[in-house]
Amino acid sequence: MTDYNYKLIIAYDGTKYYGWQKQKKTEQTIQGKVENVLSKLFNENINVIGSGRTDAGVHALHQTANFHTKKLLNEKEIKDYMNNYLPEDIIIKEVSIVDNRFHSRFNAKSKTYYYIIWKNDADEFPLFERKYVYQYNKILNTELMINASRLFEGKHDFKGFSSDKTKKSTERTINYIKLIEDNNKIIIYINGDGFLYNMVRIIVGTLIEIGTNERDISTINKVLIDKNREEAGFTAPSKGLFLEKVMY
Amino acid sequence: MTDYNYKLIIAYDGTKYYGWQKQKKTEQTIQGKVENVLSKLFNENINVIGSGRTDAGVHALHQTANFHTKKLLNEKEIKDYMNNYLPEDIIIKEVSIVDNRFHSRFNAKSKTYYYIIWKNDADEFPLFERKYVYQYNKILNTELMINASRLFEGKHDFKGFSSDKTKKSTERTINYIKLIEDNNKIIIYINGDGFLYNMVRIIVGTLIEIGTNERDISTINKVLIDKNREEAGFTAPSKGLFLEKVMY
Repeated sequence: MTDYNYKLIIAYDGTKYYGWQKQKKTEQTIQGKVENVLSKLFNENINVIGSGRTDAGVHALHQTANFHTKKLLNEKEIKDYMNNYLPEDIIIKEVSIVDNRFHSRFNAKSKTYYYIIWKNDADEFPLFERKYVYQYNKILNTELMINASRLFEGKHDFKGFSSDKTKKSTERTINYIKLIEDNNKIIIYINGDGFLYNMVRIIVGTLIEIGTNERDISTINKVLIDKNREEAGFTAPSKGLFLEKVMY
Repeated sequence: MTDYNYKLIIAYDGTKYYGWQKQKKTEQTIQGKVENVLSKLFNENINVIGSGRTDAGVHALHQTANFHTKKLLNEKEIKDYMNNYLPEDIIIKEVSIVDNRFHSRFNAKSKTYYYIIWKNDADEFPLFERKYVYQYNKILNTELMINASRLFEGKHDFKGFSSDKTKKSTERTINYIKLIEDNNKIIIYINGDGFLYNMVRIIVGTLIEIGTNERDISTINKVLIDKNREEAGFTAPSKGLFLEKVMY
């Protein structure tokens, strides 16, 4: 029997979820919700492979996942069924049958995240966007932050910039960090080949502390060498973080 | 002693509220929240006059209100205090001391509302905007809707297009209705000298029924003449409705 490999593009508002990854203790994970609906549709246990985890409260515009089954269903019907039964804060944007060798996690070449800071000197408070930005209450020197972001680019051991407790390799490559000021917001784009647990949020927290002059730029290289989480900046809140895209 | 007249510009996400107007049964009204914070700040009972009510669940970008007190406080300090103590879904955009004769309701010359419909044939579902649009599940003929909207313009008795049970005059003037298609959305702007209870939402509901061909354009004039609510369209959900501005 043929084995079909279905690829999913998923967007979600992470506000109410304990992150992407399925957990035993709670139903409130994106993976859990997606698997439940698919298992009902295919009438078998479906295991969904995500491109990677997103932390609790983190949003996604274009998370990629895939799953295998021997059943052939129409792609549009799968998409419509899923959007019908999933909660309104999880949206299936695409369903497609792909090459059997495609693996959402192993084949991911790079990912782009962005982080939205609502500026302290903004004209006003965020209202309809308040759950999707980090409203920061101090003035930020964006020029300093841009200079600092250069130091993260390239291949480094990011152990000090993560909450990862695993013994696996903590070496990653950041291809670029771009900082854009847009009206009331500062948006930080980060593209890399992979990210450790909390890594984007700790990098953003470190950049913020540099932007307020609480922290010197030189501390970045020190953390990259010492690999000590305690020396890095705070973990910026998850609500401002979006997984924008996964590239293959 | 001098009497000071403070004008407020207020924005709110109406999702969680039973509308603008204070009620005995619930604390969950915008006026109630605003008065509570002001009464604490001024240490006296403050009565806030709004430009008009907004229904339960309706949002506002620029609601206008005013209140009188004999105490002189700094405008910026009032604004900061209010934004500090109000919930995050109510935002004070401006506080200013104005002429004593200014009255938010009586002096309002016109108001603009807009209503957002998420198109059935949109590329995707609304995710981060899902609480602020009406996701309509049929295809709409916007040309028909634009033609129909012309019939509302001008001075009419809108009793049939409202849920108003009062015996006051139900004559109002609609200055214009503009319909704009913007990507996945249809946005209907309505400007008029005043609006009856549910009036904008019933006009939008009627336009939607015309857009699906369920209703003939000619029914509009019939309702304007018969003044019978039962003959008009359905009341479009409040979550797509925004009070954009009040003009004086």
